[in-house]
Parts: sequence; structure tokens; C-alpha cells
Amino acid sequence: MTAKKEPWQDWKHITKLDPDKPITESALETIIESGTDAIMISGTQNITGKNVSHLISLLKDYEIPKIIEPATPDAVIYDAVDYLFVPLVLNTGDLKWIVGKHVDWIMTHEIQWHEVVPEAYIVLNPDSAVGKLTRSNTALNTEEVIAHAQYAEKYLRIPIVYIEYSGTYGDPRLLKRLSGILDEASLFYGGGIDTKEKATEMKRYADVIVVGNVVYTDIDSFLETV
Amino acid sequence: MTAKKEPWQDWKHITKLDPDKPITESALETIIESGTDAIMISGTQNITGKNVSHLISLLKDYEIPKIIEPATPDAVIYDAVDYLFVPLVLNTGDLKWIVGKHVDWIMTHEIQWHEVVPEAYIVLNPDSAVGKLTRSNTALNTEEVIAHAQYAEKYLRIPIVYIEYSGTYGDPRLLKRLSGILDEASLFYGGGIDTKEKATEMKRYADVIVVGNVVYTDIDSFLETV
Repeated sequence: MTAKKEPWQDWKHITKLDPDKPITESALETIIESGTDAIMISGTQNITGKNVSHLISLLKDYEIPKIIEPATPDAVIYDAVDYLFVPLVLNTGDLKWIVGKHVDWIMTHEIQWHEVVPEAYIVLNPDSAVGKLTRSNTALNTEEVIAHAQYAEKYLRIPIVYIEYSGTYGDPRLLKRLSGILDEASLFYGGGIDTKEKATEMKRYADVIVVGNVVYTDIDSFLETV
Repeated sequence: MTAKKEPWQDWKHITKLDPDKPITESALETIIESGTDAIMISGTQNITGKNVSHLISLLKDYEIPKIIEPATPDAVIYDAVDYLFVPLVLNTGDLKWIVGKHVDWIMTHEIQWHEVVPEAYIVLNPDSAVGKLTRSNTALNTEEVIAHAQYAEKYLRIPIVYIEYSGTYGDPRLLKRLSGILDEASLFYGGGIDTKEKATEMKRYADVIVVGNVVYTDIDSFLETV
């Protein structure tokens, strides 16, 4: 890591909430008081300005840092959030997930660039919604994943490399390799973290772990991941 | 422009030499003594390690800054050059010109990252070799070109936006618009500069003009572009 500049670079645990899934106000309060560092509003399917706005309205009285991670230009909302984490998918099979949607977004929005943090996703679960939607080449071997990560860090100089196993637990050995190779970008890991053991294992290598689904299935297990 | 850090950020005129085209030693000497700021070794067709090496060997006793701009991983040579300007093509129709060839390069070379400068190309001449090879969408309107340039500058934070009309002279009004919008990236222009008037016109808006073909067709006209 280079000299830390942004508050997000001190985070260790992010909770990802899906605006397409209902959540009670008491569950939300439990999450916010859990010790997680930030709430990321993100999802792959049925993400609309309306359901994103609704989730933001539920969060608006809490001081926890809030991030929107838009899947499409339509879901980009700036009010009442601290950051826009805007992904590109390095191993996509479709240009629009690297440059197309981004150009559409720039043409249709007044962008607050100081809130924007680019994320370079490498999507590794072929059965996930994000893997299918982005037609990602998930069959990368370790050396290929490393080369993609170096491309993001050294060539594009993107500050976040995000290893996304969305819905399944990934290979800690891959994260270990990546953590030894990346020295400027922050390494984010997301996918299948639903116990304290998995959270501890992945956090050993990743700078930040992102926990999502278990919030909706087992809030007590979620609390153990923090 | 932000605070200048790299010597290349002071350049105004680059001469692009194609390793696939023969050049005499006296023509080379004329070019080097012309006042051009740097020699860029670059080409789209028939670029091999061998012809690149040959051109580098002809240049090796001159102190002028030398750049390789590789079109394929095979043509990447580090010896005796000062920089590698490594392009991606923002408006390509084929992923390999944004991420594929770059990953291949990273997997097969020991990269001297401190020599690497990324360039974000926007290719606008449909009849050029580079336009055809990269299947670029050259039919962008001005607003679309601007959005691509902002994507490169603000999102990817690439230090060079390169407007490439390869072989034909572009629209100075487009360059004027871009020069008013970019404030961190250097604006490079290449294509059809073969007179003092065209050089002066494009240099008014571009930080750097790149002059190529006229070297091979009319060396006296080339000298007027400097």
C-alpha cells in the first residue's frame, strides 16, 4: 500500500446490501451497529433508481459511510452517499462492462468525480448473476488472475482490485498469491463469507472483505464475520 | 495539467517512425536534428521484434529520447529506449485492444513498469490500418469523443488521451473542445500533419503533435512541422 489518503483505505469490512431485497429497519440497525466499516448499496439484478433511493432513505439518519456501487447508469444516485464505487469487469466478454456503460454514464450525468472510486473486478464464479450478466471468462488460472490484477494496478493504476466469487466461497490460496503481488491497489474479496472462520481466513490476505448474502439469511452469522 | 513530473510532459512534437518502412541514415540524422522532441517507434502492420530492433540499432548513438509504442506483445523491447508508451483503444470493437493483449504481455514479459506510460487512443479514421485492425467505432460524435476522453482521464486516470486520425487530417474544432475539457491528461494528436500550417493549427489545442507519414514522403515538409 502507498501512503493512505482516503478514509476508505482504512476499512476492513464492508456490508453489501441489495436494494432488490427487503430488509427490516431492525435488521438494518443491527448491521450498522455491528462494527462493519461501511454500507455498500449494490446488486446485479433489478437495480433501479427507485429501490436504491428507498434503501438510501432507510440509511439516511445513520452516520456510517455509505457507498453506491452502480450496476447501470440508471442506478447512480449521488445524494446522501459518501462514495460511488464504480466497477469495471476486467475479465468480461462484453466491452460494455469495461467502457460502454461508463461512457453512457458520463454522457447522461453530472458526475461528482471526487466521490468516484474505480474498482477493477475479476469475476470468478460462473454461476453467479454477475458472471452471467457480464459474460465473464471465469475459467482463469492463477497466473491469468494475477496478470489481470497487475494490469489493473500497474497499467490502469486503479486503486481497488476486487476478487468477486459472488455467492460462493473462493480459493484462499489465490488471495494469498495476490496479496503478495499487489503493492499499491487495495485487494477486496467478496463471496460466500458466512462464518467467522471464513471471514478470518480471507481477511488474512484481503485488505477488505465484503459480506452480503448472509445478512439476508442469518443475521447472527453475519455478526460473526465482522 | 497537473504538476509536471515526467520529462515527456514537456514535449511538443514527436516523430513517429514505422519499423516496417525503410529509412536512410541521412534521413534519420535530419529528423533527429530537426528539433523534434522524441522518436516514437510504432506501427500497425508487420511489426516484429526484428524490424523494431533494427530501427533501435540505427538510433542507438543518438541521445534523443526514444519511445517504443508496441502494437503487439512481440514487439516489446526495453533495451536502449527511454519509454514504453503502451496504448489501449477506447473505441475498439474488440476487447483484446483494451485488456487482452495487455494481459498476454504481462504474462510473457518481465515488465519495467517505471518505463511504461499508458495511452488512451480514440481512433477516428475508419480507413486507417489501425481503425480496421482494432475494429474501432470511428463514427463517434463530438459528445461521444469527449465522454471517452473523460472516461480515460477521470475514471481510468490515464495520463495521455491520444486522438488518432492516422493518415488523414482531423477536425481542429474537436481538438479545441477536448483541450478545454481535459485538465489532467495530456492531449496527443496524430494524423495528416504534413505542413507548417496544419502543425500550428493542431498544436494550438494539443499538448503534443505526432508526425509520421510525411517523414517518408517529403522530408522538407516534415521539417516545417517541427
